[in-house]
Amino acid sequence: MPLTPDQLAEIEAARAEPQPTLRAVSPGMEAHLYKAVPVLDHGFVRVIDYMGDDAAIVQAARVSYGAGTKKARDDSGLIRYLMRHWHSTPFEMCEVKLHVKLPVFVARQWIRHRTANVNEYSARYSILDREFYIPEPEALAAQSTVNNQGRGAVLEGAEAARVLEMLKADAGRAYDHYEAMLSQDGQQGLARELARMNLPANIYTQWYWKTDLHNLFHFLRLRADAHAQYEIRVYAEAIAAMVKDWVPAAYGAFEDYRMGGVTLSAKGVEVLRRRLAGEAVTQETSGMSKGEWREFEEVFG
Amino acid sequence: MPLTPDQLAEIEAARAEPQPTLRAVSPGMEAHLYKAVPVLDHGFVRVIDYMGDDAAIVQAARVSYGAGTKKARDDSGLIRYLMRHWHSTPFEMCEVKLHVKLPVFVARQWIRHRTANVNEYSARYSILDREFYIPEPEALAAQSTVNNQGRGAVLEGAEAARVLEMLKADAGRAYDHYEAMLSQDGQQGLARELARMNLPANIYTQWYWKTDLHNLFHFLRLRADAHAQYEIRVYAEAIAAMVKDWVPAAYGAFEDYRMGGVTLSAKGVEVLRRRLAGEAVTQETSGMSKGEWREFEEVFG
Amino acid sequence: MPLTPDQLAEIEAARAEPQPTLRAVSPGMEAHLYKAVPVLDHGFVRVIDYMGDDAAIVQAARVSYGAGTKKARDDSGLIRYLMRHWHSTPFEMCEVKLHVKLPVFVARQWIRHRTANVNEYSARYSILDREFYIPEPEALAAQSTVNNQGRGAVLEGAEAARVLEMLKADAGRAYDHYEAMLSQDGQQGLARELARMNLPANIYTQWYWKTDLHNLFHFLRLRADAHAQYEIRVYAEAIAAMVKDWVPAAYGAFEDYRMGGVTLSAKGVEVLRRRLAGEAVTQETSGMSKGEWREFEEVFG
Amino acid sequence: MPLTPDQLAEIEAARAEPQPTLRAVSPGMEAHLYKAVPVLDHGFVRVIDYMGDDAAIVQAARVSYGAGTKKARDDSGLIRYLMRHWHSTPFEMCEVKLHVKLPVFVARQWIRHRTANVNEYSARYSILDREFYIPEPEALAAQSTVNNQGRGAVLEGAEAARVLEMLKADAGRAYDHYEAMLSQDGQQGLARELARMNLPANIYTQWYWKTDLHNLFHFLRLRADAHAQYEIRVYAEAIAAMVKDWVPAAYGAFEDYRMGGVTLSAKGVEVLRRRLAGEAVTQETSGMSKGEWREFEEVFG
Repeated sequence: MPLTPDQLAEIEAARAEPQPTLRAVSPGMEAHLYKAVPVLDHGFVRVIDYMGDDAAIVQAARVSYGAGTKKARDDSGLIRYLMRHWHSTPFEMCEVKLHVKLPVFVARQWIRHRTANVNEYSARYSILDREFYIPEPEALAAQSTVNNQGRGAVLEGAEAARVLEMLKADAGRAYDHYEAMLSQDGQQGLARELARMNLPANIYTQWYWKTDLHNLFHFLRLRADAHAQYEIRVYAEAIAAMVKDWVPAAYGAFEDYRMGGVTLSAKGVEVLRRRLAGEAVTQETSGMSKGEWREFEEVFG
Repeated sequence: MPLTPDQLAEIEAARAEPQPTLRAVSPGMEAHLYKAVPVLDHGFVRVIDYMGDDAAIVQAARVSYGAGTKKARDDSGLIRYLMRHWHSTPFEMCEVKLHVKLPVFVARQWIRHRTANVNEYSARYSILDREFYIPEPEALAAQSTVNNQGRGAVLEGAEAARVLEMLKADAGRAYDHYEAMLSQDGQQGLARELARMNLPANIYTQWYWKTDLHNLFHFLRLRADAHAQYEIRVYAEAIAAMVKDWVPAAYGAFEDYRMGGVTLSAKGVEVLRRRLAGEAVTQETSGMSKGEWREFEEVFG
Repeated sequence: MPLTPDQLAEIEAARAEPQPTLRAVSPGMEAHLYKAVPVLDHGFVRVIDYMGDDAAIVQAARVSYGAGTKKARDDSGLIRYLMRHWHSTPFEMCEVKLHVKLPVFVARQWIRHRTANVNEYSARYSILDREFYIPEPEALAAQSTVNNQGRGAVLEGAEAARVLEMLKADAGRAYDHYEAMLSQDGQQGLARELARMNLPANIYTQWYWKTDLHNLFHFLRLRADAHAQYEIRVYAEAIAAMVKDWVPAAYGAFEDYRMGGVTLSAKGVEVLRRRLAGEAVTQETSGMSKGEWREFEEVFG
Repeated sequence: MPLTPDQLAEIEAARAEPQPTLRAVSPGMEAHLYKAVPVLDHGFVRVIDYMGDDAAIVQAARVSYGAGTKKARDDSGLIRYLMRHWHSTPFEMCEVKLHVKLPVFVARQWIRHRTANVNEYSARYSILDREFYIPEPEALAAQSTVNNQGRGAVLEGAEAARVLEMLKADAGRAYDHYEAMLSQDGQQGLARELARMNLPANIYTQWYWKTDLHNLFHFLRLRADAHAQYEIRVYAEAIAAMVKDWVPAAYGAFEDYRMGGVTLSAKGVEVLRRRLAGEAVTQETSGMSKGEWREFEEVFG
């Protein structure tokens, strides 16, 4: 259970007193505000603040294109048009601020998305809690034999037990020693900025993370993807569910054009044209490498 | 008068119906929402949306530093500490979206601030209005004789009149020809993306501009500065007045540490130490160039 | 002719004395260094400096993936794999610095690409030259009747002549008055930062523009595209020709996966699967809007 | 010793064959290229590539200001002027690419500098080496009693020994188990992307890191500062030494105006004026908080 009673009381308090505002309000997102969606064994994601809604995207687009667009298209059609034609700036007009608790090795992937603002808990300044990510049995997977950066089958019986035992014991011992090094009982106590180096990458950290909708979609496209590591994908999926309630029209367009979309190479377009014309194309006659051909066949058979 | 009756009615409508929100609300900024502050002869700035307030800055800092900071400092003291020590990430947790109408030559300076989101009126897609910036007599200044990128005395009588006459006549003629080229009466009509090239840099454009508070402070420091061109400075000043109402504690720290602050070189520090110790230091004995010395003396006499 | 004899002599001098370096060298790019490729009537693009080559992209990828990749793939195959899977960071390891002379209305589009470094000629500080873009007859196009931000047929006889006459006369007069306002003969002379506002958007400016290869590819995808305005497209094409000589393998992958590629929506994928299975799909049964269907048919018939 | 014989041979080979180039060449930086400067117990920094030199900064500034500046100032004076007046864009015209081997907890601080390009060794894809940062005795410091994010005195005898023993034993055991989990001898073998979570933050990683000179100076100002954590400061110092050889004039200006410079608040300026006028100012009469006053006194006594 990731939240303490104090934290739950804080959330309740924060949700207790709505205030009037003249800004754009998204009822779907208001329902999520401050509530923590549990992710993994000790993590969570929650929305702390947001700016804009579907109408704000449309409004920004109409600053660019002028009032003429008002008659031509309804809002949802305009949003789909913007997404289809990679007009990203109107989506940048929405912003969201999340509070995330996550294992350090997930944080290290996440932070590679540079167009975002971040305030992370400082282990130079404060002491980390004794909380480590220990995978559920069904997440304990073997190395993939076909994909150098992927997973294969779930580990079985004794091997799974050995792995869990090592992860738990090492994390526990590392944290015991972290505390022992920090302790000022009868000794000076090691500096926090040094003691933290003993902690493994499955310890939990937390941060405020703020980004705009365009960059969030880019994050979701990469991290909610089937090829993303499971432990970051579950965060991306939790966020995606919030975004769907926040900006339903934009999220719908994102699902159609990005998550469910496919990018074809010039060669791929050519192969499809030949196949539509009745030709039987093989990898050898496609001009594609084996890897490209395999990926192409996964989509079009 | 920069606003049409339609626009005023739109603003009134947008301000008419407050809605409940659970987000952080800044009463000072709510009072500004949607209202247009006139700038120059046809321009304006207005806030369309904002995220966060002084408390949000503090809250983000406390994610980093842990709850321990709660007792140690009150909010305003913590904000001053963050500003003094260049801890910029908590200020990035606030965001603002402005609607600005401004001459193109001002827009060209403004856009150089890259960490922002922009949707500008498209003159490829739509037709620009016949509105040009014509300086007030007191803004009609001669080239500075000491500063290559500055202004000197106000132009006098006949010269000022000649300048105004040229600016007005050229703008009017350029716009007449813009319309003549676009016209489809008895001719094909030039493409809008081409016709716009005839318009001078004092024509007005407009955009939505969204940035975070840290980058906004950076913008204000450079553009509300006495060395900034007058025509962008008046926009910066109008924005600064809003920011003061939005995040009063952060704005106070900004005024003290940035707008009113001074950066000394190592040489400058050394000269001050020597002077405090009673030594009379001259430019020759300061190790500074003439330019540095002049700037130093402007501050410390 | 965009270059003065002085400039040509400078280029010759800059190319006269190769120096030894231990860095990665791209012979294809060395051949371009400093030479100005003419664009439009007075513009040019030239490479001032570059960092990296195809091998540098591969080297950066191998830092990420480890030496194991060395045997598995040749360099060009790895570069294609990176491009196909949107692994953009290795492409960011190459950098290029260009010197560009371009009309202001083109510069205004160009600058919207924010991830770049720019030093532009300052009309606050210096006086602009009397050089304006006047389109060639074949570039003088009517407004498109189907695309709000596009061009249609070339203007004919008398209309074309009228347009050219207006563009030339207005530019000339604006520049005459610019000079008259600046003049200090018998008057104070208007500040340069003010006088520039009289100049139309087809006046030439120049800048140094530096960006990495990933962002340059993004720029080229948008600006060398058939939907880009002709006047920026010719710059993008001139740059693309240099990039092809600089990093031939990366450019080849870019052509196949980006310039020649197509992004399908989930609906588009579904329609193709149905058609490959022998079904005759129409717009009505496709689930697509008319606009989407038209764009889909443009590719697949 | 951070480098293997293979790596040393590679460096020697890379340095063996200079090639001619027409680009700007910095002899000071050529002397550093590819060579690894050892940092901490297993880390290093080395320059892989660079773009530009002092003259390139000046050249970019002169594109902005026009040729008139040529006579007015020598290069070094112009560079000092740019630095003093925060004209950062000419410094952005230089770029450097570094190969860095560093502990993960240092990498986590470093990556917060967002305006850079990074390719990091992937522990999803490859297996990390058994190399951990174990501090030298003189770096094994107690928590500071005055600064929540700083160090105090060096740890003494038995305590230091206990800390080192814990760090070494935990790292060794964590790596043994990492290998045991990965092993495919008689078991499936855990996925690399999961096994890595058992490794502590003092394990070494490596990356290519590329940034421009302006952002590098910002990094150096924060990370070569006395308040930075020792383990990142030694990297910053190693880089600073290279930059000094690369762009000596820019580095000199950076030392004077940034590293050795001091930012005064409006209150600080006022106090200095009063003291220069002979007044004895105390914290109570200064208007400063205790913290501000202490920092002020550290500089001016």
